[in-house]
Amino acid sequence: MKVAVIGLGYWGPNMVRNFSALEEVSDVMCYDVDGKRLKEITTKFPNVHAASSYEEIIKSDCDAVAIVTPISQHYDQAMKALQSGKHVLVEKPLAASAKQCEELVELADAQKRVLMVDHTFVYTGAVRKMKEIIERGDLGDIYYFDSVRVNLGMFQHDFNVLWDLAPHDLSIMDFILGRQPNAVSAIGVNHYNHMEDVAYLALHFDGNVIAHVHVNWLAPVKIRRILLGGSKKMIVYDDMEPSEKVKVYDTGVKVVSREGIYRTLVEYRTGDMFAPKIDHTEALNIVVRDFLRAIRTGDEPVADGRSGHRVVRILEAAEQSIRNAGALVHL
Amino acid sequence: MKVAVIGLGYWGPNMVRNFSALEEVSDVMCYDVDGKRLKEITTKFPNVHAASSYEEIIKSDCDAVAIVTPISQHYDQAMKALQSGKHVLVEKPLAASAKQCEELVELADAQKRVLMVDHTFVYTGAVRKMKEIIERGDLGDIYYFDSVRVNLGMFQHDFNVLWDLAPHDLSIMDFILGRQPNAVSAIGVNHYNHMEDVAYLALHFDGNVIAHVHVNWLAPVKIRRILLGGSKKMIVYDDMEPSEKVKVYDTGVKVVSREGIYRTLVEYRTGDMFAPKIDHTEALNIVVRDFLRAIRTGDEPVADGRSGHRVVRILEAAEQSIRNAGALVHL
Amino acid sequence: MKVAVIGLGYWGPNMVRNFSALEEVSDVMCYDVDGKRLKEITTKFPNVHAASSYEEIIKSDCDAVAIVTPISQHYDQAMKALQSGKHVLVEKPLAASAKQCEELVELADAQKRVLMVDHTFVYTGAVRKMKEIIERGDLGDIYYFDSVRVNLGMFQHDFNVLWDLAPHDLSIMDFILGRQPNAVSAIGVNHYNHMEDVAYLALHFDGNVIAHVHVNWLAPVKIRRILLGGSKKMIVYDDMEPSEKVKVYDTGVKVVSREGIYRTLVEYRTGDMFAPKIDHTEALNIVVRDFLRAIRTGDEPVADGRSGHRVVRILEAAEQSIRNAGALVHL
Amino acid sequence: MKVAVIGLGYWGPNMVRNFSALEEVSDVMCYDVDGKRLKEITTKFPNVHAASSYEEIIKSDCDAVAIVTPISQHYDQAMKALQSGKHVLVEKPLAASAKQCEELVELADAQKRVLMVDHTFVYTGAVRKMKEIIERGDLGDIYYFDSVRVNLGMFQHDFNVLWDLAPHDLSIMDFILGRQPNAVSAIGVNHYNHMEDVAYLALHFDGNVIAHVHVNWLAPVKIRRILLGGSKKMIVYDDMEPSEKVKVYDTGVKVVSREGIYRTLVEYRTGDMFAPKIDHTEALNIVVRDFLRAIRTGDEPVADGRSGHRVVRILEAAEQSIRNAGALVHL
Repeated sequence: MKVAVIGLGYWGPNMVRNFSALEEVSDVMCYDVDGKRLKEITTKFPNVHAASSYEEIIKSDCDAVAIVTPISQHYDQAMKALQSGKHVLVEKPLAASAKQCEELVELADAQKRVLMVDHTFVYTGAVRKMKEIIERGDLGDIYYFDSVRVNLGMFQHDFNVLWDLAPHDLSIMDFILGRQPNAVSAIGVNHYNHMEDVAYLALHFDGNVIAHVHVNWLAPVKIRRILLGGSKKMIVYDDMEPSEKVKVYDTGVKVVSREGIYRTLVEYRTGDMFAPKIDHTEALNIVVRDFLRAIRTGDEPVADGRSGHRVVRILEAAEQSIRNAGALVHL
Repeated sequence: MKVAVIGLGYWGPNMVRNFSALEEVSDVMCYDVDGKRLKEITTKFPNVHAASSYEEIIKSDCDAVAIVTPISQHYDQAMKALQSGKHVLVEKPLAASAKQCEELVELADAQKRVLMVDHTFVYTGAVRKMKEIIERGDLGDIYYFDSVRVNLGMFQHDFNVLWDLAPHDLSIMDFILGRQPNAVSAIGVNHYNHMEDVAYLALHFDGNVIAHVHVNWLAPVKIRRILLGGSKKMIVYDDMEPSEKVKVYDTGVKVVSREGIYRTLVEYRTGDMFAPKIDHTEALNIVVRDFLRAIRTGDEPVADGRSGHRVVRILEAAEQSIRNAGALVHL
Repeated sequence: MKVAVIGLGYWGPNMVRNFSALEEVSDVMCYDVDGKRLKEITTKFPNVHAASSYEEIIKSDCDAVAIVTPISQHYDQAMKALQSGKHVLVEKPLAASAKQCEELVELADAQKRVLMVDHTFVYTGAVRKMKEIIERGDLGDIYYFDSVRVNLGMFQHDFNVLWDLAPHDLSIMDFILGRQPNAVSAIGVNHYNHMEDVAYLALHFDGNVIAHVHVNWLAPVKIRRILLGGSKKMIVYDDMEPSEKVKVYDTGVKVVSREGIYRTLVEYRTGDMFAPKIDHTEALNIVVRDFLRAIRTGDEPVADGRSGHRVVRILEAAEQSIRNAGALVHL
Repeated sequence: MKVAVIGLGYWGPNMVRNFSALEEVSDVMCYDVDGKRLKEITTKFPNVHAASSYEEIIKSDCDAVAIVTPISQHYDQAMKALQSGKHVLVEKPLAASAKQCEELVELADAQKRVLMVDHTFVYTGAVRKMKEIIERGDLGDIYYFDSVRVNLGMFQHDFNVLWDLAPHDLSIMDFILGRQPNAVSAIGVNHYNHMEDVAYLALHFDGNVIAHVHVNWLAPVKIRRILLGGSKKMIVYDDMEPSEKVKVYDTGVKVVSREGIYRTLVEYRTGDMFAPKIDHTEALNIVVRDFLRAIRTGDEPVADGRSGHRVVRILEAAEQSIRNAGALVHL
């Protein structure tokens, strides 16, 4: 299998490193518009060679392309790769609009090629463990999903904090809840330019389920925490914990009686806490292996193009809501 | 000075204890509709005596009444007390509607009596220290106020999580920011009855300042954390920390250049952190002393009736926004 | 049952409060050499009355005496109480020497009276839960007990940090391990007077089991943590955690092979973590109820005089080791 | 400058990576007895080439050798390198006995070559910051140094937990206190073979200063914490904190009066806390640069051979104390 990586900024070299460590991959080619950066990376990884342009990659006999460029370039680069019969792995978010995502998904289907999005968190041991716990029904009915992802961050120049950080939360939510919101509302403010640096996003599901995401580039501390409330148990996933990232609380509310519509007696139940052992394999290693597996077998990868589309559809609706003072946008 | 306390549920006995420990208070009377509870408290506090009804309190020669009853009773009881010339301290929120608050404020003005609301947090060492830091200008321009107040809580039977918990956050915000939002939007969901048990509240200020409050009765862990972003420094106030509740980060963003409207180069600055020593005096002790000081001097207490009104005005708007799917409500 | 409390410093009033809240206790008398303090407490607790001297208590018809005075007075006061046929509960440590403890135990036996020591921690939910887990055999063979109890403390005027703080650790150890060390070594230093303010204490058991206690009055932060290593599982008990004080780690070492005497291949096993729900009943409430139960039934209380003796025997040996530069003292 | 690295286990490759990233280093050669491991590393670092034996390195024209082999090999390999005129950087501890260290220091002096020990922690931003604070006199008189370094660790086959972990604590202590203990006592136990897996080490200094180190391979959690008590301020250095590793507490004890020898009234002072910004440069990068600087300038590196000797001298004494049931060993 021959693989090419385009875009060697912060994340691209990690792709290069992971692909080049795989036995199945006989050749890794890479490219970046910044020639100096390109040289740096090919020096660091001796078994990786440089392409002189993206066209060279497209025309080469490589089987698959990983696109780790700014969001605005994803669509064009992925279209070209799919059109030339290559499998494609795109950095999150999949593209800059839901329509672009749809076209990519359609083309990949038509070409019978793998289209995958790098929703890295979905492949972490912590998120896979949460999925397992939820699928086992341990939480009972899901009540809410609340995610906070804040720190003193890197301002993106072409997209705001929502497009930069929320794909993480939305892809985790999409993966572990396995259901789709029917409406979105969002609020954002900017303090340095026209790009929002603080945003709050609410997702409304059937059955009184709510998801909420707080993303912030201007926080003095790094917080990466998801609260997941259920009728039987609840989860706290704190990604900043060195170990014990996922804690399952045997905690809940018991309705004691309903005396008329205006009276509910509830009783609190606090019980044991359990922190399952988490697999610490580097998530990106599992990402690239899932990509190759999908190419080899024809099965869909976990983070397929459709999941990329679902995430972007929400981002787009949230963006629209921000432009309309938080008005509800139905999906 | 003679003081009466009505309502001896969870918080009322703390009022009784604090009033009865003051030298200036020669007599503390108390009342609760639950005769058993009334007896329990008067047995526990021997120098406190029971009234047989609220009317008895109103007709008595007591100077001041502290009202610690359910929200729906605040207005009637406070009106009666003010009408009979007594000073009044009301448990938060001040009343069940902005209109009720206005009437109380007007009557107190007309009667020249003190109307105070028990915004306890405003009197804590941590919040007073934050106010001091902000007033000194250390934070520069304020960017955002973000508060999370969640735990496995006590369901109120007459009001939702917003009216139960958010007065804490809103009174802290009102006190330390010293400015008013011009619009509110909110989202809430309920899982056990018609009362919201999870709510998100956004407050929009002039100048791209935003405040956000997350209140939740269904969380497996107790979180009480406020993030306060400024152009020069930022604060994290974590009320669950045994010491070091307030941390001031010498952290910020520096705009390096603006090349055209679409390009802002920003640079992050992370620096020292400083945790000032916090006064640990029980906040309620300072509350009752501020109440007596206001009575004695005629000066307004820090948490005056007007601050109670401002908080309820926001709660009311938030409630309206929740009923309208999060639509913006202008104040 | 009539109870008297002597010594109303920091801890005595908690005894008064707990005894006076018990239905079985018809009368609580108390005494302190400081008349002002005595008045303060009897004012605060109206159903408690003051004695004019300890002799008055001894001559009274009270059934039991709780002694919460400085360590140097324990022996005399307890002897007098036992001699006059009263049951006795003594604040930890039981007395100032092992010999004194022995005499108290003998006299209590002879008089058929309850002699109990207030090893409060032994009655906490956390310690009782640890005992339960250990007795179930979950930990396998015990390897070590390591306790750190440091903070900016209150200097005692008559005893050093060892006698002030280590009784907590030693009584917990005595209770949960259920076995006795055969030797003690200790090191201590003082910085302000002749009283050690930092001390390290090591206890040697049969079978390569070690216990270690670090007590310190000069620490900038409060640490209360016990590590308990076993062949199958290990425990961390952190008393500063608001909840989840006891964490059980399914973590251990597996000997893979022994190739010759100089080679042991070991393999680490890290697994799930489990934090059992802890009973939060105030420990002192359980202490006073266990005292009354022992009086009523004639059964020994959990923290009987013999456990008080065992703890003091270790303290005495540790003191001797400190005076001899850490030399081992056999018990 | 040409550099060779011998020993490519866990730490050696980090040396290779850091040396090969330096501009001044034109050539990096490496060697390991395990041919497979040697090939692995030279494949990963293309600009690094393999030697076929340590003799080849010794005979080569390389200027400096970094020795990252098991402790028992340090002395022989370092002697050979110094004898052939090469500068030497040895993984901690410098050698297996104080005598070996002395000989190495003497030979390096005679040969006018740099002898350095890789006391990595001494080069971390956190430890350098602590040194700076102490040298400024902020702490006042030093009272104690208390270090806990425990986790579920890797059993060494040739040395116990003391030789494996305590060099970290002892080198930090040596560096920041800048004075030498006059006696050592230590206790250790083993549970799996003849190698101690839990050890406690006490160091006695003039002037009632004490240092204590707890090292443990059998702990369920990872703790890396140093408490440093002083008469004016105190420090907590927690290496597990992602940021704010060093906290300086404006906390102390004030002697109010001394009424006779048996009475000291002390008053506690708790004040602000301050967490200085810490430089996050990889410590090993500073290590290798200090090594090259020392070679270039002839100045001593911060972690010179003498500091390596001082640490080993303490380890040796501690070992002797362990074999004598904790008896004090004078240095």
